[in-house]
Amino acid sequence: MTDPAHPLRNGYGLDPEDWDELRRLGHRMVEDVIDGFESLRERPVWQPVPAETREHFRTPLPLEPMGAEAAYEEFRRYVSPYPRGNSHPRFWGWVNGSGLPLAAFAELLAGAMNSSVSGFESAAPLVEEQVLAWLKEMLGFPASTSALLTSGCSMSNIVGLAVARSSKAPVDVRRSGIAATPRRMVFYASSEAHSSIPKAAELLGLGSEALRSIPADRDFRIDADALEAAIEADRRNGAQPFCVVANAGTVNTGAIDDIARLADICMAHDLWLHVDGAFGALAWLCPELRPKLAGLQRADSLAFDLHKWMYLPYDVGCVFVQDARAHRDAFAVSPSYLSETMEGAAARTTSFADYGIELSRRFRALKVWLALKAHGLQSFEQQIRENLRQAAFLAARVEAHPDLELAVPVPLNIVCFRYIDRKARAEELDQLNHDVLIRLQTSGIALPSHAVLHGRFVIRTAITNHRSEYSDFDILVNAVARLGAELGSGTGRNALAQRSGSP
Amino acid sequence: MTDPAHPLRNGYGLDPEDWDELRRLGHRMVEDVIDGFESLRERPVWQPVPAETREHFRTPLPLEPMGAEAAYEEFRRYVSPYPRGNSHPRFWGWVNGSGLPLAAFAELLAGAMNSSVSGFESAAPLVEEQVLAWLKEMLGFPASTSALLTSGCSMSNIVGLAVARSSKAPVDVRRSGIAATPRRMVFYASSEAHSSIPKAAELLGLGSEALRSIPADRDFRIDADALEAAIEADRRNGAQPFCVVANAGTVNTGAIDDIARLADICMAHDLWLHVDGAFGALAWLCPELRPKLAGLQRADSLAFDLHKWMYLPYDVGCVFVQDARAHRDAFAVSPSYLSETMEGAAARTTSFADYGIELSRRFRALKVWLALKAHGLQSFEQQIRENLRQAAFLAARVEAHPDLELAVPVPLNIVCFRYIDRKARAEELDQLNHDVLIRLQTSGIALPSHAVLHGRFVIRTAITNHRSEYSDFDILVNAVARLGAELGSGTGRNALAQRSGSP
Repeated sequence: MTDPAHPLRNGYGLDPEDWDELRRLGHRMVEDVIDGFESLRERPVWQPVPAETREHFRTPLPLEPMGAEAAYEEFRRYVSPYPRGNSHPRFWGWVNGSGLPLAAFAELLAGAMNSSVSGFESAAPLVEEQVLAWLKEMLGFPASTSALLTSGCSMSNIVGLAVARSSKAPVDVRRSGIAATPRRMVFYASSEAHSSIPKAAELLGLGSEALRSIPADRDFRIDADALEAAIEADRRNGAQPFCVVANAGTVNTGAIDDIARLADICMAHDLWLHVDGAFGALAWLCPELRPKLAGLQRADSLAFDLHKWMYLPYDVGCVFVQDARAHRDAFAVSPSYLSETMEGAAARTTSFADYGIELSRRFRALKVWLALKAHGLQSFEQQIRENLRQAAFLAARVEAHPDLELAVPVPLNIVCFRYIDRKARAEELDQLNHDVLIRLQTSGIALPSHAVLHGRFVIRTAITNHRSEYSDFDILVNAVARLGAELGSGTGRNALAQRSGSP
Repeated sequence: MTDPAHPLRNGYGLDPEDWDELRRLGHRMVEDVIDGFESLRERPVWQPVPAETREHFRTPLPLEPMGAEAAYEEFRRYVSPYPRGNSHPRFWGWVNGSGLPLAAFAELLAGAMNSSVSGFESAAPLVEEQVLAWLKEMLGFPASTSALLTSGCSMSNIVGLAVARSSKAPVDVRRSGIAATPRRMVFYASSEAHSSIPKAAELLGLGSEALRSIPADRDFRIDADALEAAIEADRRNGAQPFCVVANAGTVNTGAIDDIARLADICMAHDLWLHVDGAFGALAWLCPELRPKLAGLQRADSLAFDLHKWMYLPYDVGCVFVQDARAHRDAFAVSPSYLSETMEGAAARTTSFADYGIELSRRFRALKVWLALKAHGLQSFEQQIRENLRQAAFLAARVEAHPDLELAVPVPLNIVCFRYIDRKARAEELDQLNHDVLIRLQTSGIALPSHAVLHGRFVIRTAITNHRSEYSDFDILVNAVARLGAELGSGTGRNALAQRSGSP
């Protein structure tokens, strides 16, 4: 039957000529990956990429094949030695997860299945539906809640705010656009809101000015009285308040807004309540922490990540929307009766593309599904509680140390502190703590990041790491004290200047 | 040093107690993954998920750990047997890539490194920078072009149109929003544009009405004269035309708009030219196809996917923006001097978050980097050319067959055809071809999808598969002819009705 002018061929090597070659290479990768996890503690947390290695990333577009094995050698030589560092037991920078090993293997399985998880019938959308049902149960949301896995909270916040926008607009904003709204649509968040919130306002055509920044109190929680005053002022001035964004875990300190109070305000003023719970929402897993999140389930929409405080590898976040109809109405392209009557491979499960921005969606649900089955929710609960105990342990160590001070009380899993020297001026202390932080990072000892709190530069330790041990925090405390003393003295400061100036 | 009240523990099993257990499981996965690739051809393209299996996806949230091995057994039993089908040699539905095996393994490596590819110094952003440089070279764009990897063309289209919006708006639209624009901002695409284009208009607050749908000609290319007339009419009516979206490969037939003509129009009217080249842009790899894409490099922004006609597993797409400054100005949160002066782990490479929507970005560049190195660009060029020859081969087979007809000429890699029966009425033929398609899919023989062209239901074969052989298209042609005859006869139709009605 085959056209003799067109003989069979083998995908020009895109599939291997010999599957056993790729099999052997795959087994080598497994060995290297496991060896890498096993030896994490012996390596520096982070190291800069050497100039020679950087040079290698300037080679031209490869035209000829070098083969899978040779390409993998390049990965081993130039890429894998220079990770971001967040798998290491002493990485506490920004809010990055530490990465579950089993979930990394799930990425292999998902890549091999190569599912695009839209609405077509296959196991992948069923896995995502189940994962979403589990996540709702996990955070105490009703089963009727609509949900979607996303690449992370930037996307989840956009989805939640897009539903808020079209749900509260007095016109069909999908069709007519923002220009057709009779009054300026405005919304509210505290000054501690994550940068993805104003970015969402920009993307959605509301403009960053539509986001009213409400002051936070000394503990970095939104000032609810100021919020109510702002809503009333906007109403008086002819704007249309439509939404409040609550922080469940601010990025700087882990502060949690009074969600129940915000829910009351939203109810009184007919506003949408969106909760940005990137990592903080996960504290719900520990029953003793639930009072801090009281009112969480009154959110109209909730954004949270699983690649932060659920320790899963990048990327996986989630968004909940209580009103499933509003969720679909904000995104669906096709009328629901159409997909429901399709047969065959396009038969209906949930058409996820109708609940978000992306049509092509990778099978990120699989790693969540495998991790929850393998480890059970209780392991996550215990580990989150452990991170909180570690935060308390670190705070106590800092408070007990004569040369260190806690910058602010610790509301959750983030500890902000700094080296102090009674003789130094305020600006000198800021510079000194900056220098200590850079030295901590470049030495590979530990990787916290920084924050500026009440005008002061502080070392910020965000603990969403399942590999940290108590001794790791002792190492941090001792290193900060030692580097502070070293760099704070004339000698140390000169030494740093010389080091920075060297080629 | 360790607090005696807090003994060491091992992440509550989130890292394995015994690494060799996960090592063994990883090796089993490698065997299963490779066996799966090797046996693809022996399996049905697609099969529905049985009711018993669906039932399994309704089990409650797992509280207790079942262990990694048991969880993997569930994957083997309930998930991996029911893929979407797009890895199979006879999958030609929608436009899904067939998935490179090496790239699936790259997902394991990326998952284990667990990089968030924002601006912080590590190998991952350097890999992404190199991949972007290669992609620009591959498609003939200047090195000065700004670029970003995305989850796919839905996102790439949003990014391109967001830059167009803020670049062409007479006000600071990021700050003030769409409501502040003095005239209604409108843009243009043909009636064949992908659904992600009106969806982007909605998301960006422009509203789907801001997208003017311009008629296509008989070959599904935009009517450029009608476009010019529409631009002029909008101008007269007080709107502000700001952008034209060109299709490089429409989803239904693979038609390519006259990009050079559209570039001229955009230049004459000071409009942004965005090209949606999801799969079609990749035809540039074959020099003999470049005339079809003439003018491609005049696009202000270009969206394309690598998980379609570059055969990579989901997800990976890309967006180019010629004006790097405009790209950054549309998204950057922090002034550039800030990040440039940071030292340590936050030292500057490209801050990718300043060029798009997401702050957390997974290391999807790795699979592109490994695949281009291992296979070389020439393998992709050859395979794309092969898919085009296969499309011509299929079209010729259809034309030579007395019971089949080609629906439209084949401009690229998509072949639309149908079973014909001279005695049948038009609606009967639509129904018959629908039934043939469903039977093809449910039988597991082949998986094309459908389109409605000039009002007629046709079987649509989109060839972006590196595993298809010429004999696979013979199987398709013969199956359509056989099923058409079977189902077209009274017996066949009754048999189908009975089958559909059975539980």
